[in-house]
Amino acid sequence: MIAVDWGTTALRAWRLDAAGAIVDARRGPTGALDARGRHAAALAACIDGWDDARIVLCGMVGARNGWVGMPYVDCPASAADLAAALRDHADPALPGRRLLFVPGVADRAAPDVMRGEEVQVCGLPGVLDGGRHLVALPGTHAKWVRVEDGRIISVATAMTGELYALLRRHGTLADLMTGDDAPRDRAAFEAGLRQAGADGGLPHQLFGLRARALFGRIDPAALPSWLSGLLIGHEIRGLALPMRPEGPVHLVGGDALVDAYAHALALAGIDSRRHDETAAARGLWRLAQLRA
Amino acid sequence: MIAVDWGTTALRAWRLDAAGAIVDARRGPTGALDARGRHAAALAACIDGWDDARIVLCGMVGARNGWVGMPYVDCPASAADLAAALRDHADPALPGRRLLFVPGVADRAAPDVMRGEEVQVCGLPGVLDGGRHLVALPGTHAKWVRVEDGRIISVATAMTGELYALLRRHGTLADLMTGDDAPRDRAAFEAGLRQAGADGGLPHQLFGLRARALFGRIDPAALPSWLSGLLIGHEIRGLALPMRPEGPVHLVGGDALVDAYAHALALAGIDSRRHDETAAARGLWRLAQLRA
Repeated sequence: MIAVDWGTTALRAWRLDAAGAIVDARRGPTGALDARGRHAAALAACIDGWDDARIVLCGMVGARNGWVGMPYVDCPASAADLAAALRDHADPALPGRRLLFVPGVADRAAPDVMRGEEVQVCGLPGVLDGGRHLVALPGTHAKWVRVEDGRIISVATAMTGELYALLRRHGTLADLMTGDDAPRDRAAFEAGLRQAGADGGLPHQLFGLRARALFGRIDPAALPSWLSGLLIGHEIRGLALPMRPEGPVHLVGGDALVDAYAHALALAGIDSRRHDETAAARGLWRLAQLRA
Repeated sequence: MIAVDWGTTALRAWRLDAAGAIVDARRGPTGALDARGRHAAALAACIDGWDDARIVLCGMVGARNGWVGMPYVDCPASAADLAAALRDHADPALPGRRLLFVPGVADRAAPDVMRGEEVQVCGLPGVLDGGRHLVALPGTHAKWVRVEDGRIISVATAMTGELYALLRRHGTLADLMTGDDAPRDRAAFEAGLRQAGADGGLPHQLFGLRARALFGRIDPAALPSWLSGLLIGHEIRGLALPMRPEGPVHLVGGDALVDAYAHALALAGIDSRRHDETAAARGLWRLAQLRA
């Protein structure tokens, strides 16, 4: 089968063999919300040469303004609940293929939602098999997902990545960060994390970065790291500490972000376990198996 | 004399008589940092017909990248300290005028700074004459200024207004706020204020606005008010509550912002006293008198 995680910024596709092992992987450049009217063509181009009939898709491609608008499954939601809500779709531009779309998950009490991350949770070994777990999926909209006895019981989103990008591109702080320095200064990242625990609140602490720059108390190249630490620090204090699990936090994502979050969690006294983004492929395979 | 408060977005000028009473007022459209190379011409146009020799100026016009780069006076700073640091300036494009620039104030312990707001503090009746006071000056960069025994002892800035403008213009939340609705929905503003006191932290609570909109739990026209309440709520919790004065908070600014802050402070159990922006004119007059 072919597993597709199609989010707002990119399409990731994997080809899996009959035993669920990943045999090939590709990326497409078009975001799920930017491909309106040409989803089938974009997908066909990305999986060209892979002749598997079954394609299972998750992510923002199933949003109201995506390709096939999929409903949300409410918390608490098990892998079986998600599999039962998969929806078949045939597209004339993809003859001989059977598309299967995954629903999103809604936490109506919060309220909060996710699309795609629920599949990554399904792909983590053991997490949905029992016990209590906390899964963090850093990104533009970071998701914190609590799992209990095989069911997703809550979702909490933090706009940390989006805030970072906004402040990096526009306004007073952006004017100080003229280069394209990535947040790689460990000491400045830690200083930002510590600042998140100080008095004053985030709107005040953000200006502190400007004041430090004005008085020459921080190297301009270190500003992005300090900002990243401050924002991730607020996320960890607001979400990880109150939801602190008995075991390690499961961190899922790209290397740089997972590094940063693991570091921040460790300084807060919380262990973590790292997983890469192939969790999506494994989760899609699991849902397809449950459906079969 | 002529009093000029020239900030990043506008120039405000007042004409005062020999007793310090305001006899005329004007506004100019050019921000102090946008007028580089043509400050004298912009000022001359604004005060055309006012023939007073003495012009006293405060605000970002005295920043490093403004008209005449003025140093900061360090906290603790009295009105006499500020008056002693006034600097004379003559400009060939303004013959017969004596310009007098006001310094900024630096809180090097925080660190934090202000330019212009220190003059408004000087213009508030009684505040610099003794006792303990807390002055709040809402805006793009809101300033919270503590005064003790006639001296400004600390400055704390919150980027609340800038954050509001960024989130209103760019990204996920901006996409939900398609109209130009001003934050005027009292119930939504109060809901945002309450949310600032809930768990999760600001990066998470911001996404809560998106989730509420998705589930139809908030009227789209009320989103700006909810966002404004959330951000001002974080500012009040981070700054006003820890610095809580015995008397009322002195609020200085335009009507809409002062309304919002007075309301937010009242819900937090803090009284406030309102002052309009002519505090700048009175403060400039006071500093000129101390210098004379």
